[in-house]
Amino acid sequence: MSSQRESFRGLSAAEFFYRNREIAGFTNPTRALYQTVRELVENSLDATETHGILPDIKVVIQLDEKDPNKVYVEVSDNGIGVPVEEIPSVFARVFYGSKYVLRQTRGIFGLGIKMTVLYSQITTGRPLYVQSSTPESPVIAEYELLINIKMNLPIILSEKLIRKRKKFHGTHVKLCIEGNWSQARRKVEEYIKRTAMITPYANITFITPEGTTIYKRSTKIMPPPPQIGKPHPYGVDTELLKHLFVGNGNQRLKDFIMENFEGVGEATAEDFLKWSKIPNKKLSSFTIEEIAKIARKLKEYPNWRRPRPTTLSPVGEKLLKKGIKSILEAEYVAAVTRKPLSYRGNPFIVEVAIAWGGKIPASDKPILYRYANKIPLLYDEGADVSRKIVDSIDWSLYKVKFPAPLVVVVHVCSTKIPFKGIGKEAIADVPELEREIENAIKEAARRLRIHLRAVERAHEILRRKITFEKYIPEVARALSIITTVDEKTLAEKMYKMMEREIEKVAAPVSVPAPTTVSVKAKQEVKR
Amino acid sequence: MSSQRESFRGLSAAEFFYRNREIAGFTNPTRALYQTVRELVENSLDATETHGILPDIKVVIQLDEKDPNKVYVEVSDNGIGVPVEEIPSVFARVFYGSKYVLRQTRGIFGLGIKMTVLYSQITTGRPLYVQSSTPESPVIAEYELLINIKMNLPIILSEKLIRKRKKFHGTHVKLCIEGNWSQARRKVEEYIKRTAMITPYANITFITPEGTTIYKRSTKIMPPPPQIGKPHPYGVDTELLKHLFVGNGNQRLKDFIMENFEGVGEATAEDFLKWSKIPNKKLSSFTIEEIAKIARKLKEYPNWRRPRPTTLSPVGEKLLKKGIKSILEAEYVAAVTRKPLSYRGNPFIVEVAIAWGGKIPASDKPILYRYANKIPLLYDEGADVSRKIVDSIDWSLYKVKFPAPLVVVVHVCSTKIPFKGIGKEAIADVPELEREIENAIKEAARRLRIHLRAVERAHEILRRKITFEKYIPEVARALSIITTVDEKTLAEKMYKMMEREIEKVAAPVSVPAPTTVSVKAKQEVKR
Repeated sequence: MSSQRESFRGLSAAEFFYRNREIAGFTNPTRALYQTVRELVENSLDATETHGILPDIKVVIQLDEKDPNKVYVEVSDNGIGVPVEEIPSVFARVFYGSKYVLRQTRGIFGLGIKMTVLYSQITTGRPLYVQSSTPESPVIAEYELLINIKMNLPIILSEKLIRKRKKFHGTHVKLCIEGNWSQARRKVEEYIKRTAMITPYANITFITPEGTTIYKRSTKIMPPPPQIGKPHPYGVDTELLKHLFVGNGNQRLKDFIMENFEGVGEATAEDFLKWSKIPNKKLSSFTIEEIAKIARKLKEYPNWRRPRPTTLSPVGEKLLKKGIKSILEAEYVAAVTRKPLSYRGNPFIVEVAIAWGGKIPASDKPILYRYANKIPLLYDEGADVSRKIVDSIDWSLYKVKFPAPLVVVVHVCSTKIPFKGIGKEAIADVPELEREIENAIKEAARRLRIHLRAVERAHEILRRKITFEKYIPEVARALSIITTVDEKTLAEKMYKMMEREIEKVAAPVSVPAPTTVSVKAKQEVKR
Repeated sequence: MSSQRESFRGLSAAEFFYRNREIAGFTNPTRALYQTVRELVENSLDATETHGILPDIKVVIQLDEKDPNKVYVEVSDNGIGVPVEEIPSVFARVFYGSKYVLRQTRGIFGLGIKMTVLYSQITTGRPLYVQSSTPESPVIAEYELLINIKMNLPIILSEKLIRKRKKFHGTHVKLCIEGNWSQARRKVEEYIKRTAMITPYANITFITPEGTTIYKRSTKIMPPPPQIGKPHPYGVDTELLKHLFVGNGNQRLKDFIMENFEGVGEATAEDFLKWSKIPNKKLSSFTIEEIAKIARKLKEYPNWRRPRPTTLSPVGEKLLKKGIKSILEAEYVAAVTRKPLSYRGNPFIVEVAIAWGGKIPASDKPILYRYANKIPLLYDEGADVSRKIVDSIDWSLYKVKFPAPLVVVVHVCSTKIPFKGIGKEAIADVPELEREIENAIKEAARRLRIHLRAVERAHEILRRKITFEKYIPEVARALSIITTVDEKTLAEKMYKMMEREIEKVAAPVSVPAPTTVSVKAKQEVKR
């Protein structure tokens, strides 16, 4: 037996992620740079559109003059800002934040920005610079922060309050990390482009050593922001119940259920008690075994209402199309926003768009653009449920023959996206979600088929027309000899007749303009 | 702008994982049951073989009589046990443990067992039962534990010390979780089988509602246990340096480097100082900027020795073959243990085995068995670096034509496996590792090719022999008429001549027995 004695110790959450940063996407200088941009941009978008503010975001990448492996990443926004007293913890304490509520946001873990600080601290030793102000605050706060890794607490290197001279709110963040810009560049650019595509109401200015790209908003319409919701009975567990029971010992079960869960009215609460045979006692009188039973019964009761989608903020068919058209310059786009559904008490909505032709390059299988709560997902496509579904579909049923210029956009919104990892790159194959994504893709694909059929028809007609036109002079000449009518008059009449006939055949569809098929436009804009 | 004010708060590590349990593999009752078995078995194997103890492990799955969705999982081992005073934290405090050292073990996060406790707590409300004793301890400790999720601290429901009557050490753990045994069964069985395959020196008794399977150890030889190592200069970062500097302010840099890093002698330390132009000052006199520079230079210096592999514990070619043969009952197995290499200062060793024929079913592409630090990986194969490599290899170069009965076993050992997630299911494509896995597979594949050639040859010879034999009597009769020599004598002589000729041709390889090709056996056992 080995003589080494084991030594035991605890890690703070910060030390855990310091040691295992790969797990949060900070794998190497290329990936870490990508991840840093992502975390900052996502925070900025959450700080704006989640609160009904049209996003104005500036992203700056700068290389250190002496050492090009040192990269400055800077992001500023016009969001709601962070209250002064919360700034140190929000930016420099792992698992601290405002996102631990039921509402669709990009951030959920309270980890991203702290990982970027840890990473800059590890690689360049430099602090995070942050400047922020809320709309109500009379001052702008400026901080330089590091993380005390052993304790998981912020280290405040400098702190300054500046009186506001004009109305301003927002956050400005700057970091210096070790990064490989030349390798990360393509992915970062793609990330920004795909972000612009799903948020056509955002102004994004993207400044890199190579130049400036501006994605100007193509609309001022934003999806309604998500509301904070209550848990749904299907998502309840023993621990949550125990937690909610605390301080409410005198309340009775019926009132408790009505008050604390999503969409439970009095009739439903009473029916649940009858169905589950649980007495309407005071909360304090339930034993642990009984609480476990309540949790189980809450999950099993068949008559709860579906979770409401007010906590969600899908893009909507109209905006989705707008974004995709302006970025991909496709010939045709079909967009589908499905009805809300739920898995294990978590509401979700699937949106799918299919873009075809135009400037989309032909490829051997559909190009997939994945989004989760409006976050573009660029890595680990092979592990994602959507790739699996897209590959399993028989596209020939939809008149698609590969190589084809086909992009499939899948957007999943949920208060709880079933990510496969903390890096938030792939969505797991939860059955309810898988089924819904498949249905959504097929719905969009059927619209594409109608379009492709129309194109086929238009081409067919064009071919016929060319054939006719070729023979008209000859036929006219022959007829002219027989009828002694003027050859030119005959030919003109025949041309007109042909146009009329072709118009009849082509009536249901117009020849596709480089935008949409008219017959479908109405349906697609119904939202 | 939305009127909702943001509310901020912090989560304990326990609450974080309670909320995001999917990330650690606790996705649903099927997967959670699999993951629970895995965590317990891996702890037991770490507690035995890492300390030079031949593992005796018993795994029991039992369904609750009243409710078959409640599953009891019980694992006991003859390991080194956990000291009484550490038991509550080791089993019921997230990020606490003995595995935060540089050494190859299955566990690394200090999270697995706590996740199983959290999960039982959430789904059935039942505590963890644990009984443990170290070799030195005069008592066996018995606990029932839950986790205080808000505080990330153990809740001790009961505590009992029993005087030992005989020599005993080990740990016995029992949990009751919500699980779907009928769906998880196949994966759990496969997991146990693959574990037995890579640990042929372990006795594993596996008791399920369907019966008992015993994997008896086929050898008492174990790989040497891993030693605890020091960090390698290539793996150093600013934070680690700052941490190591604390309390050593009076030490000079040269001595510090020699003492704290792996394989740095005096000559190397001096050369490093000269090369990096960093003065050999007292540690206390370095500024943060200088410390960041030291960290960078330590990473860039080209002449460090490779990390030593004493922290690793590969299975070895001999044991690998033994395990695979006894479990897969293959016709042929080639095993390769490569030399140690490193990525970013982390030593790693790749082992590959290729098994062919026998009871392996033919399939359209190679069946892949993945292992990381002897942990069988059963999920997320599509995201794993090994699958990518296996699929990219042109197997026809190795005389393999699909469908073929081919299993490729890849085992990666490292003090830091680059897992893609906390669930430890897929290995990321770190370039150094990717290259090495490819080389290892090709090395094993070349041995397979030799074997397949030998088989081909043997069959060729057999075919020729059959042809000869068919004609010998006729030829003998004809010759007998001409030479008047007895026909039977002639035939016998010809048979002998044929045997001799065939032996000559077949000399380099014997007809393959259902085990190995003799010509290669020596090379394969060189370890």
